[in-house]
Amino acid sequence: MRGARLLVASSNRGKIEEFQELAARCGGGLSVEALPEFDRLPAFDESAETLAENAAGKAIYYSRGVAELVLADDSGLVVPALGGEPGVRSSRYAGPEGDAKKNIVKLLGAMAGKTGADRAARFVCVLALARMGRVEAVFSGAVEGTILDEPRGSRGFGYDPVFHYEPAGKTFAELPREEKDRVSHRGRAFERLAKYLAEAGRA
Amino acid sequence: MRGARLLVASSNRGKIEEFQELAARCGGGLSVEALPEFDRLPAFDESAETLAENAAGKAIYYSRGVAELVLADDSGLVVPALGGEPGVRSSRYAGPEGDAKKNIVKLLGAMAGKTGADRAARFVCVLALARMGRVEAVFSGAVEGTILDEPRGSRGFGYDPVFHYEPAGKTFAELPREEKDRVSHRGRAFERLAKYLAEAGRA
Repeated sequence: MRGARLLVASSNRGKIEEFQELAARCGGGLSVEALPEFDRLPAFDESAETLAENAAGKAIYYSRGVAELVLADDSGLVVPALGGEPGVRSSRYAGPEGDAKKNIVKLLGAMAGKTGADRAARFVCVLALARMGRVEAVFSGAVEGTILDEPRGSRGFGYDPVFHYEPAGKTFAELPREEKDRVSHRGRAFERLAKYLAEAGRA
Repeated sequence: MRGARLLVASSNRGKIEEFQELAARCGGGLSVEALPEFDRLPAFDESAETLAENAAGKAIYYSRGVAELVLADDSGLVVPALGGEPGVRSSRYAGPEGDAKKNIVKLLGAMAGKTGADRAARFVCVLALARMGRVEAVFSGAVEGTILDEPRGSRGFGYDPVFHYEPAGKTFAELPREEKDRVSHRGRAFERLAKYLAEAGRA
């Protein structure tokens, strides 16, 4: 029983590295690499109304003609006090270029004056696993936190510096990688994926 | 070019009828029927953290060994003032039996004292289309509304009687079916599905 190899349909280095750490944590020889075709194909349009449609759509699109397992991810930060924003638009909240710093500035502006329970937020991750243009499984994970007034920490990516995880008393950008991997939305979804592959005897 | 037949993985009559109307609206010979295997198989566990995982998981599970297209749906009512609840737990909000009246009573209780923007809500629908245990496409749709203080209207199902759609000045349970189909979360998602099948020359 040899380990499975997952090809990640993403060009986000932070995300690919996080998947590589997550795979290493799971043991069993599961390995993760960037999908070579990713930058060669026209970009997939990720403007659907749900993380689900984006993640599954990406997995289907990028796995066409690929006999290996392709992993696509879509994640979002859901802030109930902002009506669920930035949600499915998280990575492009401040503009199509997807600049994390600008996204954080915009978020903190929108949160100005909000206190207590109104600063609650949830990170949600949807993972889709596909091969030859067909999805064989979808996994998801979520984690609750609060949005700080200003960024703290230098690890992670995206909104991590302002997402405060109460049980650890730290932001996701302050948490040691291993600890973030264990509790994060992406870590929880990936754990289910690894369990699925292990049960299928593939990792 | 003959019309496609979709087998819906659901035992919710209201939902199946809604899909049949939606298919009829689209023309092109697209037809919808309940999946015969649905009640014969052990029920799929719909307790994932996202509509995506539930919809795709259901589509994969119920389409195993089925050569025809199987359609699975998961929908939820997202109320930002309740931290996004009932969300993915919408159909089982007041208990596992999924009683719509009890769900509405629980929702109205949770909304007591909430006014203005705090009564905003969003219906979200995720549709997954699968065959032989593999998802070939995922579609989603959403619609914004407000939660009334008490139910109005007798059409539709689920939370429709308390979901007020502002542009029509009516709840989803008061709207003529045709009008609801045109604007609802499920209608919008289904429209994308029908377009996908038409472009693929299948409906």
